[in-house]
Amino acid sequence: MAERIWTAALAVIGDEILSGRTQDKNVAQLASWLNVQGIRLAEVRIVPDVEERIVEAVNQLAARNDYLFTTGGIGPTHDDITVDAVAAALGVAVEVHPDARAMLERHYASRGGLTEARLRMARVPAGASLIENRMSGAPGIRHGNIFILAGVPHIAAQMLDALTGTLEGGRPVISTTIGCWVPESEVADVLRETERAHANDGEGGVSIGSYPFFREGRVGANFVVRATEQALVDACVADLTRRLEAAEREVTAGGI
Amino acid sequence: MAERIWTAALAVIGDEILSGRTQDKNVAQLASWLNVQGIRLAEVRIVPDVEERIVEAVNQLAARNDYLFTTGGIGPTHDDITVDAVAAALGVAVEVHPDARAMLERHYASRGGLTEARLRMARVPAGASLIENRMSGAPGIRHGNIFILAGVPHIAAQMLDALTGTLEGGRPVISTTIGCWVPESEVADVLRETERAHANDGEGGVSIGSYPFFREGRVGANFVVRATEQALVDACVADLTRRLEAAEREVTAGGI
Repeated sequence: MAERIWTAALAVIGDEILSGRTQDKNVAQLASWLNVQGIRLAEVRIVPDVEERIVEAVNQLAARNDYLFTTGGIGPTHDDITVDAVAAALGVAVEVHPDARAMLERHYASRGGLTEARLRMARVPAGASLIENRMSGAPGIRHGNIFILAGVPHIAAQMLDALTGTLEGGRPVISTTIGCWVPESEVADVLRETERAHANDGEGGVSIGSYPFFREGRVGANFVVRATEQALVDACVADLTRRLEAAEREVTAGGI
Repeated sequence: MAERIWTAALAVIGDEILSGRTQDKNVAQLASWLNVQGIRLAEVRIVPDVEERIVEAVNQLAARNDYLFTTGGIGPTHDDITVDAVAAALGVAVEVHPDARAMLERHYASRGGLTEARLRMARVPAGASLIENRMSGAPGIRHGNIFILAGVPHIAAQMLDALTGTLEGGRPVISTTIGCWVPESEVADVLRETERAHANDGEGGVSIGSYPFFREGRVGANFVVRATEQALVDACVADLTRRLEAAEREVTAGGI
């Protein structure tokens, strides 16, 4: 029986990413964290600070994935509209969460007190719970299968840390990498045949990714074999290594 | 009369981004390039190497933007399915482009010749033209308002370079940054009022982005004022500086 695949989507909210001003780091960070939880990052959308676009992304992505994460737009300024947009998508009101208010009061007690702008960071879609954030005063927010995280990567990392082990997932994806100093075009047939031989069904089977590079004046490629069972990965890696060596390619275990 | 805003979307195609293995660099690179062309990057989707997901993204994004770019999935291996997916979205056949074939023949003449796998890189959606790529043999592909680029960032950059100045756009977005050593929550009101005073209509007007940071043990924020006219930017920056200084904040021109 095919194993249940758990999926998550990410909506990155922020004009700063779309303008090219800021290099996103949350996609890779969330993807790596999800892998360990046994959840696959299935799709990402980067949307501007425009409520209707956030609402559209939230509705579509939450409906077809087990989990939806958002990053960005939960600070105190006028362009921070994520909470309002998620509430609109859910059809619920926005309310001040008493625990979030208390956290912010403590955090800002020695920093000038809780102003109206700062109190914005205690607003949540009605019915939400909080995600702890040891780094700064403002918490993340959970509402059902939607997780609202900060945009600043090291704060988002804190929030993910607080969620570690709390989300139901499947088996983590395991991967092993091998490398060759070879143009990938010369071994494309070997890759295709090996993947086919190991019964990749596009979901729970083995997949082989090919990642070419140009380094030290030479071309090469790393091949990443992924599956949810170590035995499947090992068998495929052994077979791929054998086939590459039969084609007179020198294989570097662990990748180049 | 409001100026026409030209928009583009980007579909990043690749399991390697969604798995967290590879840090995307094409979003920021394309965004910066588009700014100079007077085109706004309006949305991004990162989709897996699954044809139906690519087709869905291509159809939705191309319909509601002036331009659609894709990155990734145009190499010679079994997981490179972008051309097939775009052709399916357009409802056209896939064919070998004679010029692309000739380019690849020249490129591989001294590198072992044009194998069947390498010939895959000459396949295009029927009716497409080519985008030059001086870096490696395989060209990019243009079909109407869809631009199919390589996933490797320095090759994508070459292809963008070949397109520079060839796409119709509006005025480039101009931006000026000023900075303060201040928690953004303390000046949120000033930012909101200043933006409102400068008639941001959400499209062609002035917008102020607030980007907090934590550096040298202190918190601060940079404020980026954007518009398509220098005079609007200058007036807003002058006003924002005056308001911040009136609130006893020291302003650093050019940002911190």
